[in-house]
Order: sequence, then C-alpha cells, then structure tokens
Amino acid sequence: MNRKYADNSLALHTDLYEINMVQSYWQDGIHNKRAVFDVYFREMPFGNGYAIFAGLEKIIDYIANFKFSDDDIAYLRELGYQEDFLEYLKTLRFTGNVRSVVEGEIVFANEPLIRVDTTLAEAQLIETALLNIVNYQTLIATKSSRIKQVVGDEPIAEFGARRAQEMDAAIWGARAAVIGGCGSTSNVRAGKLFGIPVSGTMAHSMIQVYHDEYEAFYKYAKVHKDCVFLVDTYDTLKSGVPNAIRVAKELGDEINFIGIRIDSGDLTYLSKVARKMLDDAGFPNAKIFASNDLDEIMILNLKSQGAKIDSWGIGTKLITAYDQPALGAVYKLVAIEEDGKLVDTIKISGNPEKVTTPGLKRLYRIINKHSWKSEGDYIALEWEKPQEEEPLKMFHPVHTFISKYVTNFEAKELHQDIFINGELVYELPGISEIKKYVDENLDLLWDEYKRTLNPEQYPVDLSQACWDNKMANIEKVRQQVAMLKK
Amino acid sequence: MNRKYADNSLALHTDLYEINMVQSYWQDGIHNKRAVFDVYFREMPFGNGYAIFAGLEKIIDYIANFKFSDDDIAYLRELGYQEDFLEYLKTLRFTGNVRSVVEGEIVFANEPLIRVDTTLAEAQLIETALLNIVNYQTLIATKSSRIKQVVGDEPIAEFGARRAQEMDAAIWGARAAVIGGCGSTSNVRAGKLFGIPVSGTMAHSMIQVYHDEYEAFYKYAKVHKDCVFLVDTYDTLKSGVPNAIRVAKELGDEINFIGIRIDSGDLTYLSKVARKMLDDAGFPNAKIFASNDLDEIMILNLKSQGAKIDSWGIGTKLITAYDQPALGAVYKLVAIEEDGKLVDTIKISGNPEKVTTPGLKRLYRIINKHSWKSEGDYIALEWEKPQEEEPLKMFHPVHTFISKYVTNFEAKELHQDIFINGELVYELPGISEIKKYVDENLDLLWDEYKRTLNPEQYPVDLSQACWDNKMANIEKVRQQVAMLKK
Repeated sequence: MNRKYADNSLALHTDLYEINMVQSYWQDGIHNKRAVFDVYFREMPFGNGYAIFAGLEKIIDYIANFKFSDDDIAYLRELGYQEDFLEYLKTLRFTGNVRSVVEGEIVFANEPLIRVDTTLAEAQLIETALLNIVNYQTLIATKSSRIKQVVGDEPIAEFGARRAQEMDAAIWGARAAVIGGCGSTSNVRAGKLFGIPVSGTMAHSMIQVYHDEYEAFYKYAKVHKDCVFLVDTYDTLKSGVPNAIRVAKELGDEINFIGIRIDSGDLTYLSKVARKMLDDAGFPNAKIFASNDLDEIMILNLKSQGAKIDSWGIGTKLITAYDQPALGAVYKLVAIEEDGKLVDTIKISGNPEKVTTPGLKRLYRIINKHSWKSEGDYIALEWEKPQEEEPLKMFHPVHTFISKYVTNFEAKELHQDIFINGELVYELPGISEIKKYVDENLDLLWDEYKRTLNPEQYPVDLSQACWDNKMANIEKVRQQVAMLKK
Repeated sequence: MNRKYADNSLALHTDLYEINMVQSYWQDGIHNKRAVFDVYFREMPFGNGYAIFAGLEKIIDYIANFKFSDDDIAYLRELGYQEDFLEYLKTLRFTGNVRSVVEGEIVFANEPLIRVDTTLAEAQLIETALLNIVNYQTLIATKSSRIKQVVGDEPIAEFGARRAQEMDAAIWGARAAVIGGCGSTSNVRAGKLFGIPVSGTMAHSMIQVYHDEYEAFYKYAKVHKDCVFLVDTYDTLKSGVPNAIRVAKELGDEINFIGIRIDSGDLTYLSKVARKMLDDAGFPNAKIFASNDLDEIMILNLKSQGAKIDSWGIGTKLITAYDQPALGAVYKLVAIEEDGKLVDTIKISGNPEKVTTPGLKRLYRIINKHSWKSEGDYIALEWEKPQEEEPLKMFHPVHTFISKYVTNFEAKELHQDIFINGELVYELPGISEIKKYVDENLDLLWDEYKRTLNPEQYPVDLSQACWDNKMANIEKVRQQVAMLKK
C-alpha cells in the first residue's frame, strides 16, 4: 500500500480520548502522578461457571515495546497537537508496575485480573490495547474450555481462520483455543509463531479437481501417509465412505488410514451408518471426524443421540465466540496519588454492578486443604493477610448475609509481578505448560462449576476491610453530589 | 518475544490442508493447472436487504506480497515437508488473475464477489486469507450501514476498539465501519493508517482523577477548545449536566461547547431532561451524544420514544457484529483445466443452497433507465452479453416460475480487473471516494430493500444459460454417483 504513515508501532492503537486526556494532564502538570487501574469483567461469558484468562503474552510484548514512532508523532502533529506535547510523547516509555494473573488461570467476574500501577499518562495510554487483547483472548480460551468440557478426552481441532474477525483474531484466537482445550489448529502461521500443533488434510476442492473421489483419495494417500478422507463432496454414504474404504484396502500398510471426515448432513445418522460401514470393512480403528458449525450445545445434542464421532473440528462458533462475541472487560481507576500518597477512587453508577471496588487489592484462591477443592476467591486490600486468618470469614459481595467461615485452607495468591519499574520480571511459559496449568486449576473446581448449562455460581468475595472501604467511598461521593447546588 | 520464527510473512496464514493439497498436486504434476474459484456468501447478514463489500485493499496488499519467507520454509521443514517441495514453495508468487467487485459495492447473497483465476496451487494457498479478510470487513461495513440507515444524517462515531476481536479487527473494523456509514473512529492507529477521521474527548477516569467533576471539565476545556463533557460519572442530571453548563458559562467564548455525552442509565429519559436543562441554560445548540451498547434496534427504540440524541457512539455491537459475528463467505472451485481447456466443476450437497454454480461468470446490475433504480442483479456466463438482450428475461434461481422481462435498462458490470497475470492493474480509491460510491449505489436501491426489519428480497438471478449449465452439471454428478457400486 502507498500509505502516508508506516504501520510500525502500536502506540497509537488507543482511543483518541486517551491522548486528549493525557494532554490535559500534561498541561496541568499531573501526568506523572501515580495511578492504579484494575482490569476486570463484570459477567461470566456464555453463562459459564468459570473463565480462562489469556492474553498476557501479547500484553507483555505490547508494553515492553511501547514507544511512539516518528510516524506516530508526524500523524499527531497533523491532527494539531502542539510540539512541546509531542516532544514529551516521543520520550514516553512504560516505567511502572504490572501485576496480573497468568495465562491459563481460572478467573471469575469482578476479580481484578491485571493491575496497572504507573504514571497517570502511561496507564491511560495503554488502556485500549490491554482491553482489546484480554477481552478477545480470554473469551476464546473460555469458549474452547466449554467445548472441551463436553467432548472430554476426544480431540478438538480449531479451524476457524476463514471466519475469524480478521487476521490477528485467527492467530491469537487459535492460540487461546489451544490454551482452553483444543489439541491443534489449522492455522499454519499460528503453529509457526506459537509452537502449537497444526492439523488438516483435504478440502472439497481436491475432490472436484480430480472430478473423481476415488482418484482424489488415492492421490492424496500416495503422498501423505496419514489420511483423513473428506467423504461428503458428492454423497457421504453412497460415494464418500465406500471410496475411502476402497483406497484404504488397496493401499493397506502403505498408508495410515486415520479415518474419515463428515462436514455436512445429519451428523448423527451419517456417523452411525459410516461407523458400521468402516467396522464391517475391517477398519474398527478408523476414526470419524465431524465438523459443520459445531459448538458445545450441538455436540451435547449429537452425543445424546448416540452419534459415533471420535474427533471434532470447530470453526466459526469458537473463533468468533459466536453466541457472545465480546467479553466486557473494563479498566477502572482505583487509586490516584494526592500530595504524595495514594487515595482510593470510585465510580458510581445507576447500575449497581457498575460501581467499582476502590483501592489496591490482592486476589486469593481459598483452597480447602482437606478436599483440595477451592472454597472460592477472596479479594482483600493490599495490606491484609488472609492466610493468617483462621477461620476466614467469606461473605457474598451483594447479598452480604450469605457467609461462611473457612478453616484449614491455603490462600493462594493469584497475581504475579510482570513488570516492576518498567522492567519485565516475568518469564513466559510455553503453551504446553499453560495447558497443564489449566488442567491443574480445573481440578480445584467442583464439577458443579463446570456444568455447561446453569452452573453453580462460584463465590468471589470481598474481605470485610475491602467491603467497608467500598461502602465508605460510596458514601463520600453521595455526600458530594448531595451538596451540589441544583 | 523470544520466538523461534519471525512473523515476517502472511504466506502461512492459511489452513494446513491447503499446503497438504498443494503438495499432492505438485507431486502429481498438476499444481500449475489453471483453476477458477469464486468467493461468495450464501445468506444476507443480519437479515439485511443488502450487504456492502469491503476488504479489497487488504487483499491486494496480501496477494501482491505473497511469498514464503525463510522462516516459513524453515517451519515447514520442521513439520516434515520434503526439500524439493520446499524449493518449489520458495519461488512461488501470485501469477494469475483476480476480478472483484470494488469496496463500497452493494452486494447480495450468492453473487460471485471475487473470482480468482490462476494456477491450482496459488489459488488454493490464498483461500484462507481471502475469506478471513472479506468475511470480517464486509460484515462490519454492512452492520455499519444498517445503523446508518436508522440514524439518518446524525453522526456516528465508531469506538469499539477495546471490545474488538484482537487488534486487526479494531483497525480494519474501524475502516469498514467508516465505509459503511460511520463518520469517525476512536482508534488513532486506524486514523493514521487509513486517513479516516478520529474523534474522542474524555473518559470517566478523568473525572475520578480530579475527584471533582467541575474541575475535570474545567481543566479539559482550558486545554481543548472543542468540548464534549462526559456527564454520567456520579449523577447525570444532578451533577454532570449542571457542571457542564457551569463550565460552558464560565468559559463562554473561550471554548467551543459542542455538548455532553451520556454513557449509562435510561438514555431516553436522561436525554430529554438534559435537553431541557441545556436549552434553559441558553445552550440550544449543544449536542447530546449517547453511547452504551447501542445497535440499530436499540436506536430505533430510543427514537420511537422521542429520545433527544443528536450523535451516536457505537462500540461493541458494531465492531464485533454482535448479533451475527461471522459472514459465511466461501471459496468454491467453479472450473479447472483439463487437457488444455477449462472444464466446469460443481459441488453437490444435501443442502440445496450449498450446491455451487459452475463456470466462469460475470455479474451485472440491471438498472432501469427510467426510474434509475435497480431491477436486480444478473449472473451470466462469461460469453453472454445481457446488455444486448432486449427484453432481458430475469427469473428466480430457486422458484424459477417467478420471472419478469426488463426493457430500457443498463447492464452495469460489477467486477473489475484487479490482477492480470500477477500484475496489479487496479488503482485503490481513497476512503472518501469509497464512501461516495456507497451512497451512489444505495440510491439505486428502492427503500424496500433498505428496511431494517424484514426487508424485501432483492432479485439475484441466473441467466438462462447459466442455469442450464448448472442443471447439466448436477445431472452429470448424479449419474456418476448412481453408477458407483454399493
């Protein structure tokens, strides 16, 4: 493209209002005030009982490389920003602290997932990109995990690239899908970049190219020893499966006849008949792969009808999170420096669930040492030590009369230091390590929280001090508003 | 990131099966056969009466730069592909022809949008990326146009970046939204890259930073002469609007008080009361901006209740196409070279709408020269000359007895040459030119096709020759399948 400006930085991947606010702060001399923001979402996606956090790898890359390029500055100049402000932006780097849950962590609504603690200007400028990344990747990892809960040990291949919302979604969505439970992706670029397994055999066009299904299968098999034949181009049961069997018999040990893939029609019926045909032909180990707009609900239904499907290809419904294509994570100011010390802040709203929880907080998972299941998550103020409280009182943050006392527990802190004073201090794990972490964490949850439909609500509680602090802040704002002249 | 391979090419942004099929073709010596693929979608997104094509700019960039990088080759080697095949891939470039409708074109289901006519190997390798791009950008341009139909001349600002499905969706979605009807985007990077207008003022965090709404508004106003005050941080009517009015009065001509933005609560009620407060305070020209999970249906409802909103901010519901987050465009082989000449191909399916339309085709818009409205679109075989037929018979491609004869028409061809023998021959227009083209084309449509709910179905008809050819191909396959031994 003949573009006026090169796409050589992500610093402008931000909303214009961030830059306008920063300009105000800078002009007012408060841009270097310390400010603390929390990232969290308010509702569980898909009505699921848990979510799986993803996005940290890309966030780290983004923050570590945060810098306005010359093209960025030239463009801002064109928009009319003053030279001295541009001079300031040129030197801006991320100099603060980030604490975050790690990728693969099981997370819930209203928990602080990421805490950004840095200058007001820096914190404001990175908001949009952080949310853009976390919202999508966490959504897809969660959707993938929902599907994985339904299929159990059967393999899932992600192959939504062509239906993804542009290219970044295709590759980062593939990665998040693998974190959540898929075994592979069809997207080769994602395989190359993230070291995740890739899979894929043939499309309908290959059968059309040879005009003859038998010939297409035969040619494919001669080149690729591992074969999954796509059997629904002309007629699954009359043409596709018989041709697959014929090639498998003819080539025998020359090939590895993995199985067949059905991509249209009534998957329950076709899979049952195809299973019998394969068994009768002496291929009881040949697998049946199914695809065609599948999601966890459709799979539940196919399984309830006894479909003979061994392996699943999931496209559109996973890569776009079709039934809920956005996670509403937000980025809220919880404390700001005043006269050299941090003061808590709050945002009030007509919608009670939109009221923020002020202050620097820590997030703990309260694990019962007897059952090794989680009792719930516990959000405490920075200075609290829930691990030393015995018994620990946990109460519902809305219906506060619902409470319980927990004893014999471990309070596992879920945040880790990612950046300290602008330095990356966290070492990124590989994908297989992240997947292992997901499995370990899911083991801590009772099955009731993992149900696909209408799961139990997992407790995410505030400590008494955190709750009291929130109430005091709400009261303060109410008084301020009441004092305003009409 | 410490990645093993650099992200320095998009050639692997493809499904693995494409590469596996190409390997078969290459080994079989048929990879350079001429092959023709059509891109089209089968159902109108959102039940809308029309769609707006977008994505060509990125497709051109992708195709023009198609080349496997050294890292790509190294990764494929790791996956186990043979050296001689990798040698072949190294030299591969796009050498063929692409014809396409242009960005901003009004398009409909089952029309060939893009025609790729090149070697079998090249055509197969670019499939995934083409669909990935067209599916998303066309979806968003269409969604944006739906919203535009409802708001009429009132401005729309796109500001969905934080909820977009990763970063490419944020920027290319912003561009598509502007093509479809938005006046601006909040995403500064999109503004920089595509030359589209950017807009944005302040977030709730700015009010929190100053703890005092009046002070925040005042400080912002002193720096930025153009002011839209965000009034719902504490209490829209008791605090936000009065503070906005106070600052506007105090600063008077020093600033340009554009208006206020309401981002939560009951937008109808709040906008009506706020309108009266602004009018009473002597600011009848101050605009009311509204946002908060809006889409075209919510806007219809707000308008029907008499909300006093002048300008709209649309986020999540537009950038993710929330109610239908994927367009199902497909890429189907319609002809392949056999013994030096092209032979038509077809894919049959149990679902009648999945049966492809064989052959090289051209797409015409039949415009009535009396009304200057469109009579429908007309898909003809390559050699046909509908512009010379008078009267032209148009009949429904499913219910073929529904037909009409058209006279006094112009048959406007909708495809343009984009690449010829690998050379880019098309000059990309700027965004404002594309937007103008959208408006001109929408003028050709009767209002019945533009209705938000339950629009009339626009005729997309096959020529008699095209229909006859399809039937003959179906018959041929049916006979082949029937002749297969059980």
